[in-house]
Amino acid sequence: MKFIEQLKEFLPEHRVLTGDSLKERYTHIWTMDQPLRAMCLVLPKTTEEVSKILKICNSNDIKVVVHGGLTNLVGGTETSGDEVVLSLERMNTIEEIDSESRCVTVQSGVILEHLHEAVDAQGLLFPLNFGARGSAQIGGIISSNAGGLRVLKYGMTRQLVLGLEAVLANGTVISSMKKIIKDNSGYDLKQLFIGSEGTLGIVTKAILKLEEAPSSRNAAFLAVNDYDSVMRLLKYFDQGLAGKLSGFELIWRNSYEQMTATSDAVRPPLPYNYEFYILIESLGSQLQQDQLEFQNLLEIVVEKEMVLDAVMAQSPSDVEWFFRIREDVNNLTDSMTHDQHFDISLPIPLIGPYIADCYEKLKTLKGVEQVYAFGHVADGNIHFMVGKENTEDELRLAINDIIYSDLKSIGGSVSAEHGIGLHKKPYLKISRTFEEIQLMKTLKTAMDPKGILNPGRIID
Amino acid sequence: MKFIEQLKEFLPEHRVLTGDSLKERYTHIWTMDQPLRAMCLVLPKTTEEVSKILKICNSNDIKVVVHGGLTNLVGGTETSGDEVVLSLERMNTIEEIDSESRCVTVQSGVILEHLHEAVDAQGLLFPLNFGARGSAQIGGIISSNAGGLRVLKYGMTRQLVLGLEAVLANGTVISSMKKIIKDNSGYDLKQLFIGSEGTLGIVTKAILKLEEAPSSRNAAFLAVNDYDSVMRLLKYFDQGLAGKLSGFELIWRNSYEQMTATSDAVRPPLPYNYEFYILIESLGSQLQQDQLEFQNLLEIVVEKEMVLDAVMAQSPSDVEWFFRIREDVNNLTDSMTHDQHFDISLPIPLIGPYIADCYEKLKTLKGVEQVYAFGHVADGNIHFMVGKENTEDELRLAINDIIYSDLKSIGGSVSAEHGIGLHKKPYLKISRTFEEIQLMKTLKTAMDPKGILNPGRIID
Repeated sequence: MKFIEQLKEFLPEHRVLTGDSLKERYTHIWTMDQPLRAMCLVLPKTTEEVSKILKICNSNDIKVVVHGGLTNLVGGTETSGDEVVLSLERMNTIEEIDSESRCVTVQSGVILEHLHEAVDAQGLLFPLNFGARGSAQIGGIISSNAGGLRVLKYGMTRQLVLGLEAVLANGTVISSMKKIIKDNSGYDLKQLFIGSEGTLGIVTKAILKLEEAPSSRNAAFLAVNDYDSVMRLLKYFDQGLAGKLSGFELIWRNSYEQMTATSDAVRPPLPYNYEFYILIESLGSQLQQDQLEFQNLLEIVVEKEMVLDAVMAQSPSDVEWFFRIREDVNNLTDSMTHDQHFDISLPIPLIGPYIADCYEKLKTLKGVEQVYAFGHVADGNIHFMVGKENTEDELRLAINDIIYSDLKSIGGSVSAEHGIGLHKKPYLKISRTFEEIQLMKTLKTAMDPKGILNPGRIID
Repeated sequence: MKFIEQLKEFLPEHRVLTGDSLKERYTHIWTMDQPLRAMCLVLPKTTEEVSKILKICNSNDIKVVVHGGLTNLVGGTETSGDEVVLSLERMNTIEEIDSESRCVTVQSGVILEHLHEAVDAQGLLFPLNFGARGSAQIGGIISSNAGGLRVLKYGMTRQLVLGLEAVLANGTVISSMKKIIKDNSGYDLKQLFIGSEGTLGIVTKAILKLEEAPSSRNAAFLAVNDYDSVMRLLKYFDQGLAGKLSGFELIWRNSYEQMTATSDAVRPPLPYNYEFYILIESLGSQLQQDQLEFQNLLEIVVEKEMVLDAVMAQSPSDVEWFFRIREDVNNLTDSMTHDQHFDISLPIPLIGPYIADCYEKLKTLKGVEQVYAFGHVADGNIHFMVGKENTEDELRLAINDIIYSDLKSIGGSVSAEHGIGLHKKPYLKISRTFEEIQLMKTLKTAMDPKGILNPGRIID
């Protein structure tokens, strides 16, 4: 094909994969056994190469699907065979860690865990953190505005990007690579590329904000029997720990039971007789003082009977134990025949009754075997895992209906963190108005008139 | 004129001002003596009215300039006479303070100080704060992505907007009024309206994030003789105060001398023999403990000779005294024949040498009488005030050249907070690349094809 020849003019053969060499590639880390379908896969090493590739694809009307760490949960990296797949994995250089300006310059193929290791070594912290850290790449993280476990203290990806470089569909390089914190000189263009799932441009480089690494970490499990108590405790600890509260995770009773049942490594820190379990975490800089303060606050909530039970981590290994319970979601999915995941967002005061209602309805739906809820309650973000007996569309859609149907009326979202991709597109209208979706299309058309970039993601 | 008749069909006469009634209006709170030039001024009370007004203006190809609190510093609200001025002052309702979700719903004409008072009364904080708080309105604050004194801890306006409603040039209402913290369902459209100075849409409503009001506030003045020490102290306090450091303001020697010279209310907390004065502030939730911690950190920097002098505020009135010095910039401008203001942004480690160089060059420029620098050094944002003997273009441009000319090469910005408006447009290319400016034009054309909204602001 003509465009493949054009690509080979500036890319060596081993970076333009076609035919049999695609068989070892895949579209998701969970489906490595399913070979990639695509016209070819290109492996650029520089922004200039990305630009050339897009120019060629755009002028030949070839669709481009972008691959990063392939951990996306909404079909963002799926292909149907008539696309060029552009993988950023070779653009994996950490170009500079600037400890004075406290920022790091990275190419977009850098894996999150590698970035963590590199900045840790300098006493700094890149606070974004989530389960897929060993595979997820910065480009995908930015394109999907990833969240995770420490949004409460440090914000989502959007808050952590100082500078950005992206390539538009026609190959134009938009370089806003600045280390400055404030820049009100015209439109903040980087916002367009953060969270737009690669549909408006391909992120090639970024300057990310770093934080001073905290030197103290405290954690506790609390138990209560009603959601109002959860709300009260959130307010109390947010107030009491000022800027130090970094995690406030809620686990529903049955999820807690399952999460702590599989091995001694995740043994239950508190007994099984409560409705809600809360894992709180604080990060600070004064080892002894922070521990005392955390302990004092805990003692007060116990004295005031704001909690029914509480246990504080007594050592770093206790903290790790507590978080292992929350993070190791395999303990939930391993028990399921088939599973369906959710990532909804809603106003914090409504979470208790909303989830109770979903549990109730799902329980009576034939084919549903388990329902587990847990999540970043302080961010208004709940993850739902539903176990079911088959993968039929009818059951899948019925489950979706139960979880999504009332979100519109209460101002919630069908996606807090994971994005829309291909899978959640039918539900976008629950989160967004007709006019909003039209404006998204206006932007897409203005920036990618031929619609070649990650086509079909978010909008048609 | 036809369109004025169309406006009067749904707006009462006293909300469509024309002719003589425009004489009492103006374009800036500093030029109240200069009557407004415009075809008419409209005073909508609802989003629906804003939508109708824009529909009419758009279909009649009438330019619209948006007025809020008229405190903008870059000519954003200036008119030339052939525009409709749309003032949001009647849309000044605080619709709801939701203390559970910790957010507030406001119309865009609400004055910042009124918002502060209303949320303070509920033990909550809207952290954005700056000198013009008594006039500035939320719509303008959002459109200009205002910053101010506590960006370090709480972020700029962009970080504080949860939901937004804006009206496009053609009257389409884009309503993204959600109370949720996380929403990755499609493009984050509100980012388009934040900081785009009313050129892409008119903000009519917002849901703003509130914080728990801090209950402890500590402050100190420190003195050092070299910029490296400033950097070391920033790192030290940022680390030591964890999330509590809320202000780190740098004042150059001569600015400090002038700022503390005019009255007893701004008397100098430290003597005049140092090169740099730093005002630090921390906000927390544990009155006694925070004070002790702050004091300990100060004692350590004194012991370690990281500072040459230091004084801690001993009471709330001391804290106010310290901040009065920093905030009352009239103490600088009052001494000037004419003044010229700057608001530049640059990588933090480069600030010391850059400003020293500017001082040097300005000193030798004929017509320059005073140069005062101070600013939010932890945000990389310095405010410059230059006193000069005349208002001639030649002198103005020569001063601009000195301050702006090297910003491009070091990745700085000609506007950290104030925006571009009309006045800084010639310098936009220092902050942004050709491709960035082209993309801004693409967006403007896509969203406002006739170019009626705040025309000529930022880009042509």
